[in-house]
Amino acid sequence: MSVRVVRTVAELRAALAPHRAAGIGFVPTMGALHEGHLSLLRAARAENATVVLSIFVNPTQFGEAADLAAYPRTEDADVALAGEAGTDLVFAPSAAEMYPAGFATSVCVGGAITATLEGALRGRSHFDGVATVVAKLLLAVQPDRAYFGAKDAQQVVVVRRMVSDLGIPVEIVACPTSRDADGLARSSRNTRLSAEAREQAAAIPRSLRAAQDAFAGGIRDPRGLTIRVRDELAAAGLDPEYVEIVDADTLEPIADLAGPALLAVAVRVGEVRLIDNVVLAPGVDDRIALESGSA
Amino acid sequence: MSVRVVRTVAELRAALAPHRAAGIGFVPTMGALHEGHLSLLRAARAENATVVLSIFVNPTQFGEAADLAAYPRTEDADVALAGEAGTDLVFAPSAAEMYPAGFATSVCVGGAITATLEGALRGRSHFDGVATVVAKLLLAVQPDRAYFGAKDAQQVVVVRRMVSDLGIPVEIVACPTSRDADGLARSSRNTRLSAEAREQAAAIPRSLRAAQDAFAGGIRDPRGLTIRVRDELAAAGLDPEYVEIVDADTLEPIADLAGPALLAVAVRVGEVRLIDNVVLAPGVDDRIALESGSA
Repeated sequence: MSVRVVRTVAELRAALAPHRAAGIGFVPTMGALHEGHLSLLRAARAENATVVLSIFVNPTQFGEAADLAAYPRTEDADVALAGEAGTDLVFAPSAAEMYPAGFATSVCVGGAITATLEGALRGRSHFDGVATVVAKLLLAVQPDRAYFGAKDAQQVVVVRRMVSDLGIPVEIVACPTSRDADGLARSSRNTRLSAEAREQAAAIPRSLRAAQDAFAGGIRDPRGLTIRVRDELAAAGLDPEYVEIVDADTLEPIADLAGPALLAVAVRVGEVRLIDNVVLAPGVDDRIALESGSA
Repeated sequence: MSVRVVRTVAELRAALAPHRAAGIGFVPTMGALHEGHLSLLRAARAENATVVLSIFVNPTQFGEAADLAAYPRTEDADVALAGEAGTDLVFAPSAAEMYPAGFATSVCVGGAITATLEGALRGRSHFDGVATVVAKLLLAVQPDRAYFGAKDAQQVVVVRRMVSDLGIPVEIVACPTSRDADGLARSSRNTRLSAEAREQAAAIPRSLRAAQDAFAGGIRDPRGLTIRVRDELAAAGLDPEYVEIVDADTLEPIADLAGPALLAVAVRVGEVRLIDNVVLAPGVDDRIALESGSA
């Protein structure tokens, strides 16, 4: 259970060298570990001889300084939880290790996949920050597989594109969104919700579930489905930043739901910005489980 | 002498897998091999168990379509020359292999090192193209060492920055500029010079040599040195795009020549754009050799 923590790429590579051949699984995080991260670590544990977790609150992917400052930092607890979930090594670099003086390189993913949803709201520079830090982490760890949560669906699409385009030799594994009993997607940001806001936020998974129910009932008109989401959110007093149905691979708007589509929402609840999504795919019924009486 | 040519990253990786542990040296080129490239291959041969050459005329680093179209393509001759220089494997991908449909990622190096010299003239997008293709090639080959010519001094600085910033595990080796007897830096573009233009172009190394002579004679004022370069070029009827003296590492303008400085020029001779440079460093006398009577 005593997990080794390393702070530099040099230490990381030295520690991993003897284990490289047997296979490495990697879970990149910004810390503040919750059950969602642990589910990624367990997936990595099941498929790889060595499991590496990174903890780095990446400043370049935050648009608002206040959001960065408020992001929870709980490293000691994270390391203990990671150890219980079977992590072998934690890479927790400083900002100076990741971005030393003179750092001048960024990895940018252009096109529709970064122009829409979070890219439209937070700006493309958010995904430049994500793509750059993920590329750096993948090159530092050189894992066989890297695990990401489906909650950040657009991030998964962007990372897959970047890895494919640059030819980084790693398999990107997307794991299902981990949810609380009321359906709320687990997020490190949830700890910043007041009790009242937490209750309000439960309308987010309810709204997605309402769209899933309508989809299962045969509704195929994107506008009809997004209206259901908006109605459910409005009933809880929430005004979403976006409710969009896009192609699950290209993230381009779609007129009809013939193939797999991503229904994605972003909602500000009090001072906390939350995102969530579900995939709507003909023939697939993957409805969010909600605790009884929550609707 | 029969060198294997592979066209895809998958073939490349499969071919290199058995040789990876013993060490790989890599020389990325745009083909049209000349003595300068061969000197890089020989340097790679001397230091690595396996030597890989890539031939790829990268469209994304050309600003002008005419320059791209006119770039010489001589693959059969290149492969034969590479074999004679001890190359083990040639990677010659198509543009579709490097940039398949949907490709959307670029690696960008910002700051002073891409804003000046070639970046100022050709635009930063030139170096975005260079950084992206070099990152892709390094990730495809995964060499221990990669060899670049000092003629493209700014490219070496940009590639070193990119490799350091992203943490690509490779040593970048810069080899001295290879020159013809009259001092002209060897370049694939030289084949496009008419006999008359070829003679005119010899003023470029003469002009740099004049500055080196002045520097060796104690001149330390950047303006005094660049004027010598401009005078020598003007005498041959050449009007340079730039003549600049910058810090050899940061490429920032310098007021006095206390540390190593890069003296870089770009000159259009007829329709062909040529670049050249020398390092001016106190205590180092590395003057360009010119054939007798050429000055």
